Amino acid sequence: MKRIAIDMDEVIADFHKKHLNMYNQNFNEELINSDLDGTRLWKIRPQVAEEILAYVDEPTFFRDLEVMEGSQEVIKELSKTFEIFITTAAMEHPNSFTAKYEWLKEHFAFLSDLNFVFCGNKSIINADYLIDDSPRHFKDFKGQGILFSAPHNKYRTDYVRVNNWEEVRMYFLK
Amino acid sequence: MKRIAIDMDEVIADFHKKHLNMYNQNFNEELINSDLDGTRLWKIRPQVAEEILAYVDEPTFFRDLEVMEGSQEVIKELSKTFEIFITTAAMEHPNSFTAKYEWLKEHFAFLSDLNFVFCGNKSIINADYLIDDSPRHFKDFKGQGILFSAPHNKYRTDYVRVNNWEEVRMYFLK
Repeated sequence: MKRIAIDMDEVIADFHKKHLNMYNQNFNEELINSDLDGTRLWKIRPQVAEEILAYVDEPTFFRDLEVMEGSQEVIKELSKTFEIFITTAAMEHPNSFTAKYEWLKEHFAFLSDLNFVFCGNKSIINADYLIDDSPRHFKDFKGQGILFSAPHNKYRTDYVRVNNWEEVRMYFLK
Repeated sequence: MKRIAIDMDEVIADFHKKHLNMYNQNFNEELINSDLDGTRLWKIRPQVAEEILAYVDEPTFFRDLEVMEGSQEVIKELSKTFEIFITTAAMEHPNSFTAKYEWLKEHFAFLSDLNFVFCGNKSIINADYLIDDSPRHFKDFKGQGILFSAPHNKYRTDYVRVNNWEEVRMYFLK
């Protein structure tokens, strides 16, 4: 059985939406996704970068992220013919462990928690595929990297790209 | 650079000592390590198995485990010629995440936390070697499993065995 490793933030959990909303509320702005095409919020607002980055240090930040549309249905379907692991770089946000675990147990209860991986450097992942929004994780990944579209990676052309979960379904079950 | 994945409990952290002490104190017994040769505490005391297993659900249980003798020195030495990852089946004890992370940051500060992995099923680990006290993790591991001696695995003869960290040093740096 082939194995698919799947990232959390911006792939199955809508990190971006909550983060941008928090910023807009706190700074009375109305930025939208396309303002972040090819960049990051902390890069276009360097004067408050520290404050923006600190949003995610709040232990509960990751607990109530919205589920990315279609991810539950497609992963459930894929799990019949592929081995599924959720692989998240949680070590970058050590305060997030419990929130991330509880979020997965709530929204992806059909997966075994023995298939959840909290790591940092994803070259440690032994899988055939890795679906991720961060191209840096593909560099030393031994399998096939699949870039899940997010504003910050919009102009990357060096990886197989999927724009949404329907395209993931097509890629694997076509 | 070859990569060594290293388990925590009973390999670099003395889980067993604290667990057995707690049992002896709570039940006014004087069990010693050799009473557990080839078995587990909850197996030889089935009438209180649930209580014994619950010790580790306490969020701070893993925070003050003693460091296994020689592990810091040898891992520091190995890290010059090998890539080191700490790979622990923390998903079996979700309450333990923070304690395990803080313990590693305290005692193995010379390792990057991006090289810490909290997982369940260790077949997800992409490494050349895995040093672990639980033979079940070697079953689908793609590299070389190295069994670190612990009372419960005393009679296993089906894996390369190291009895202590000096033997780990000899194995890799001989």
